[in-house]
Amino acid sequence: MLVFKNIKEMQAYSRNHRSAGRTIGFVPTMGALHEGHLSLVRQSFRDNDITLVSIFVNPTQFGPDEDFHAYPRNSEGDIQLLSELSVHAVLLPVNEEMYPEGFSLSVQVGETGNRLCGRSRPGHFDGVATVVAKLFNIICPDRAYVGQKDLQQTVVIKKLVREMNFDIDIIVCPVVREVNGLAMSSRNSYLSKEERRAATVLNRALKHGREMILIKEVSDTALIIKELEEIINSEDSARVDYVEIVDAEKLLPLDTIRSPVAICIAVYIGNTRLIDNIILQ
Amino acid sequence: MLVFKNIKEMQAYSRNHRSAGRTIGFVPTMGALHEGHLSLVRQSFRDNDITLVSIFVNPTQFGPDEDFHAYPRNSEGDIQLLSELSVHAVLLPVNEEMYPEGFSLSVQVGETGNRLCGRSRPGHFDGVATVVAKLFNIICPDRAYVGQKDLQQTVVIKKLVREMNFDIDIIVCPVVREVNGLAMSSRNSYLSKEERRAATVLNRALKHGREMILIKEVSDTALIIKELEEIINSEDSARVDYVEIVDAEKLLPLDTIRSPVAICIAVYIGNTRLIDNIILQ
Repeated sequence: MLVFKNIKEMQAYSRNHRSAGRTIGFVPTMGALHEGHLSLVRQSFRDNDITLVSIFVNPTQFGPDEDFHAYPRNSEGDIQLLSELSVHAVLLPVNEEMYPEGFSLSVQVGETGNRLCGRSRPGHFDGVATVVAKLFNIICPDRAYVGQKDLQQTVVIKKLVREMNFDIDIIVCPVVREVNGLAMSSRNSYLSKEERRAATVLNRALKHGREMILIKEVSDTALIIKELEEIINSEDSARVDYVEIVDAEKLLPLDTIRSPVAICIAVYIGNTRLIDNIILQ
Repeated sequence: MLVFKNIKEMQAYSRNHRSAGRTIGFVPTMGALHEGHLSLVRQSFRDNDITLVSIFVNPTQFGPDEDFHAYPRNSEGDIQLLSELSVHAVLLPVNEEMYPEGFSLSVQVGETGNRLCGRSRPGHFDGVATVVAKLFNIICPDRAYVGQKDLQQTVVIKKLVREMNFDIDIIVCPVVREVNGLAMSSRNSYLSKEERRAATVLNRALKHGREMILIKEVSDTALIIKELEEIINSEDSARVDYVEIVDAEKLLPLDTIRSPVAICIAVYIGNTRLIDNIILQ
């Protein structure tokens, strides 16, 4: 497996494969890889001739009070994992390579980036769109793989592709969960043992929401949101950031249930902010 | 010559040529083609296997009080001209194809877009960067051709390519002038016969600036700017928007001359705003 730190070299490598008629699958990551990321890599292997992965903790998608410096980094372990999966090449750029002195461009997402997580993370999705646009131009993949756990991110990236006319298919892969239901996330490493148990409340709340909608056929979203918030608040170390029921494509809030609907939640467990969602057809 | 109105069809056409190993040169235009545009097309022919041109009067780079609706449009004549040059294909999209309902993304250029023309045209270069990013993703050329007449635009597009990691060479071609020195511009069609004569003052001022720098070796830019403004103001129908002396790469104002330097001017001739520049090494 090749590891590129230099953008131009990665670009040339990818270009050579493309010129030779090979299809390229791309998995952009911030590293600290877990089974969720690896499921994206495996799907890319099934769909493409070549699978490329980037590992870059992107500073422009972190707010000034967020966890950019604390964010888990384990590039040696990550490279080991990707190498075992026979990934063809990894892009591992330093900040100065991605954002050299004088860098000032940004991609602004608009309204879609201001809802849900955007409310407590202003500018976050502009940072995501900017770095993903850069990575897409470096790799020029046929397909890119993203996890449904970050639902709003998948919507923003699909919008980026559609509106910026990238010739790339975005493949959204299912949330991968621990046995206890906790969605895999690099930020789970922040949790103490007790917090890890408490964090299963996100999945428990989502399951309760699914039951209300699919089995009890409750249609009033305010009522569902209220019950989910009560479940979350029943955990001592949990604090609701948001519970929202939205249409699964544009993420606009719904008053009454219609398909496809997504229940999206963000919860602080101690100091760690976790997100999770389910989509119901 | 093929004329595509549909983005996806143009993208597939360009992709096929690329897959077959052919190099692609691209000339983005707003139509109303003149000899300046045609010089870009001819240069692309010399450098590439395939030459593609876009014609699109981009609404997002016009301010609310600017000439978007009045901007000269002559797509039949343009297609005739390009066809005579044996251009391989033209992209001629409608607004709704480029900016479908719900479109909200934009590329923000930062400081480089706020100087010179950006001061009297706020948001203009963000609009340019956004549409050019889209066109680059549609065409995926090896090389794109732009005219030095729009010097700040060439700097913004080079910055877009560098910072967004487009794998594209930007080729800047010289200003093409009428016999009387007037730089070719689609907006010259707004000028009356008398204004057309008066408009030669832009080139006369630039020549005077060149003489002051290269022959008289004047180094104080404030002195040069003052003399150029006097020349321009000596024309009754001319009104200075700006006269600036900047470094030719970043367009930062210079107090004293150093190489490479650009003299950039924008002048209203009646109601028509014209720009011109020269670069001195």
